[in-house]
Amino acid sequence: MKSKAIQDNYSDDFSYCYGCGRLNERGLKIKSYRDGDEAVCTFQPQAYHIAIPGIVYGGLIASIIDCHCIGTAAAAAARAEGLEMDTDPAPRFLTASLKVDYIKPTPLGVILTVRARAKEVKGRKVVVTAELWADGEIRARGEVVAVKVPEEMKGR
Amino acid sequence: MKSKAIQDNYSDDFSYCYGCGRLNERGLKIKSYRDGDEAVCTFQPQAYHIAIPGIVYGGLIASIIDCHCIGTAAAAAARAEGLEMDTDPAPRFLTASLKVDYIKPTPLGVILTVRARAKEVKGRKVVVTAELWADGEIRARGEVVAVKVPEEMKGR
Repeated sequence: MKSKAIQDNYSDDFSYCYGCGRLNERGLKIKSYRDGDEAVCTFQPQAYHIAIPGIVYGGLIASIIDCHCIGTAAAAAARAEGLEMDTDPAPRFLTASLKVDYIKPTPLGVILTVRARAKEVKGRKVVVTAELWADGEIRARGEVVAVKVPEEMKGR
Repeated sequence: MKSKAIQDNYSDDFSYCYGCGRLNERGLKIKSYRDGDEAVCTFQPQAYHIAIPGIVYGGLIASIIDCHCIGTAAAAAARAEGLEMDTDPAPRFLTASLKVDYIKPTPLGVILTVRARAKEVKGRKVVVTAELWADGEIRARGEVVAVKVPEEMKGR
């Protein structure tokens, strides 16, 4: 049985993200699932998500890594606080910085898998690293510095 | 009179990028224009390009910075080689790494402006830095390491 995605526990206010919001009808609906100390995400790009024919667009890869790492940060923060992800309010993070190294071209037509883990959880900040795999090889590595949403941004 | 966009000089084979390809019908059609030693890009996000309501999605910002810096790299490489951008074949770059620092939230509903410049042009590699402005303030800073497309990837 597949568990509920981390993003499905974000409150409605925070579920309109183009990358991972369940309520954004035009969005990518990226989903992250906890897997032990890691979180895993699978994604199938559309035919038009290309940089050049046959190769997945780097901006899409950056988007998947971004949202997946933010979800991973939320799960790690919840765990560090002894909370369940369906705690209300669930911790919600924004991206302070995003770094992606494109190791080799990512082929179109296969499912992408991203695995991420929090390497640092400190106060409002979580640092998450990720690897993106396709067709049995690492295609990109990412690092995201995630910061907990300030109270004044809630309830927009 | 507005000059031709840098991306409009890419050969047809390299004009299907989801971010900036003129031939990708579903793409963002990001356009970069040379402006002295810099290149400038303006972009109006769609209503659904949000991270949370009212705030532009970071993955879109990463995509704009990526394609704009790659265009800036192409222009800088052409200039370094004493070529015009409409030289056939025009230099075409791919992203080796992308780094974005999100300085403050980027408001939806205004035009985003990105200015970029090559800070290093060395052999097949160009390093480009960028600033993304909205509503009179810097919202994000980016750095892209661009690498010239290997010959064996041409003609796909």
